[in-house]
Amino acid sequence: MTTVAAYAAPAAKAPLERTTIERRAVRENDVLIDIKFAGICHSDIHQVREGWGEAIFPMVPGHEIAGVVTEVGPGVTRFAVGDRVGVGCMVDSCRTCENCRAGLEQYCTRGNTMTYNAVGKDGEPTYGGYAQTIVVDEDFVVRIPEGIGLDEAAPLLCAGITTYSPLKHWNAGPGKKVAVLGMGGLGHMAVKIAHALGAEVTVLSQSLRKKDDGLRLGADHYYATSDPKTFEELAGTFDLIVSTVSAPLDFGAYLALLRTDGALVNVGAPEEPVSLNLFSVIGGRKTLAGSSIGGIRETQEMLDFCAERGLGSEIEVISADRINEAYERVLAGDVRYRFVIDTSTI
Amino acid sequence: MTTVAAYAAPAAKAPLERTTIERRAVRENDVLIDIKFAGICHSDIHQVREGWGEAIFPMVPGHEIAGVVTEVGPGVTRFAVGDRVGVGCMVDSCRTCENCRAGLEQYCTRGNTMTYNAVGKDGEPTYGGYAQTIVVDEDFVVRIPEGIGLDEAAPLLCAGITTYSPLKHWNAGPGKKVAVLGMGGLGHMAVKIAHALGAEVTVLSQSLRKKDDGLRLGADHYYATSDPKTFEELAGTFDLIVSTVSAPLDFGAYLALLRTDGALVNVGAPEEPVSLNLFSVIGGRKTLAGSSIGGIRETQEMLDFCAERGLGSEIEVISADRINEAYERVLAGDVRYRFVIDTSTI
Repeated sequence: MTTVAAYAAPAAKAPLERTTIERRAVRENDVLIDIKFAGICHSDIHQVREGWGEAIFPMVPGHEIAGVVTEVGPGVTRFAVGDRVGVGCMVDSCRTCENCRAGLEQYCTRGNTMTYNAVGKDGEPTYGGYAQTIVVDEDFVVRIPEGIGLDEAAPLLCAGITTYSPLKHWNAGPGKKVAVLGMGGLGHMAVKIAHALGAEVTVLSQSLRKKDDGLRLGADHYYATSDPKTFEELAGTFDLIVSTVSAPLDFGAYLALLRTDGALVNVGAPEEPVSLNLFSVIGGRKTLAGSSIGGIRETQEMLDFCAERGLGSEIEVISADRINEAYERVLAGDVRYRFVIDTSTI
Repeated sequence: MTTVAAYAAPAAKAPLERTTIERRAVRENDVLIDIKFAGICHSDIHQVREGWGEAIFPMVPGHEIAGVVTEVGPGVTRFAVGDRVGVGCMVDSCRTCENCRAGLEQYCTRGNTMTYNAVGKDGEPTYGGYAQTIVVDEDFVVRIPEGIGLDEAAPLLCAGITTYSPLKHWNAGPGKKVAVLGMGGLGHMAVKIAHALGAEVTVLSQSLRKKDDGLRLGADHYYATSDPKTFEELAGTFDLIVSTVSAPLDFGAYLALLRTDGALVNVGAPEEPVSLNLFSVIGGRKTLAGSSIGGIRETQEMLDFCAERGLGSEIEVISADRINEAYERVLAGDVRYRFVIDTSTI
């Protein structure tokens, strides 16, 4: 066991504060990672504030982790000291169910172990990336290729894979019209990735405030959803809409923007149920679907894809003492486009 | 113009009564059909009672039409006098949009012309199959193969194609576990067709009242949705659920019965919006979708498929003077499984 500094919420809805936590000694297949950067994801805030249900405290959030390997267990075969690595939303899964065997650990039928706000197979609570180090089984560690900074790579471990996975699954690519709903942490990565995959990309954002950014990051078109004309003009347009927003939407209005056989895929999750008229999907054989992060293999594929194309996240690096302020700014939509904690400041 | 006897609702929610309507003279590409049988579809009742919005009266319902050709226009190439033919839910479409060109006339982007409760391109209201004859452009007429009775074929024109199309689109077949939700007019055809396609078929019905029928028609398993144990036992089981019910459902409970990447496809349509927690689709990358009838080409494919395998509808043939009584029995779920009007009794 090693004591390391971290930032934690001592109780639900409480501000985060500096504290120390214990990291386990490196086991047979473990990798000890010196965390360099940790992204702040909107879901960190959801969980600290128990918006998604009862949570475990103290909570060290952070599932967008980038760092360097400083120790490996004797059974580790794929990583060595000095390697640049990342950890995302999961640190373990059952490894034997059909989904785990298919590389879909995010849908482990026995329930995977999340990076924080969870309890591992050893019965110990998990603590996330707002900390100096983390110890993770190598099967849940991915390589961050050279050619992409650890700071701008950190958000790819959640925001990157969460958008890459559905874009690939629903065949975003040449000849496809893809809309990205919401131009935030997830949305801006969806724009970059969908553009890199060859799709024609439209941003649907509340206002045109971030239009210049959207076009610079790869969008071909940019519309304000506050303007009713947007819905008239774009009716029946898209093959795929990736919704990154976690506010409840008028789903009928967005489903009407799909072409026949189009899909509206939710990666954002409103806390409350939404209302849906089924005629919105029956007419045009449309799909309302969801997608959750991505598997480990696909996360590596995404990192390789992004590194080859120079697709990092647009970030604002902050010191750890500004985490609480950053949370307020995330809630106010005041970040372009991801806060990343420089964990050397913890 | 020819005056023919028909059964019509003179006004919204009024009982149907015998009347006469005018059928147009046969045009260049028209087929005049002597209607032999017309199925009673739940959607006839929805429309007569304006459950789906304002309707056109007098209304002659009926979009499950089977009959014999008695006259063809000079431009007709595919049909001759004496042919056994059917007409389903559509009698025209724009024919030029992307969907029409792809054989998806049911999703015509300019709006197709429904068989009744609609206005044709000539500005005249359309009247359905509860009548002695109908005149339809040959492009919207399908052939009923020998080897299937016109009476048991009639319901295939809606109930058959409405279930065949999503079963094919979502790849029901060997190795796939398919649930059919609701054991009524559509549901019993879904069971027959899914079984014939090679899928493992489970019926999910409110009670076990129709279990013997379900197993006889091809179901491998039969569960009552009124029993909470059903939802425990079948969690994570199905690749595809075809919902034929038009009552609002607890969608979370049914989505939980799907495997990862499974789809819940609605062909029934509740009049009211439903409530949905998006976590139900995000966990397991699930799909909530809809499907509407099928295209003309696919309707012919379905009729050929059903005739080859002897898959007619289970029917109760009634005389026209029992239509109103039949409506009440449909609403009470008291029909096994489709009323078919013998139109010689009109």
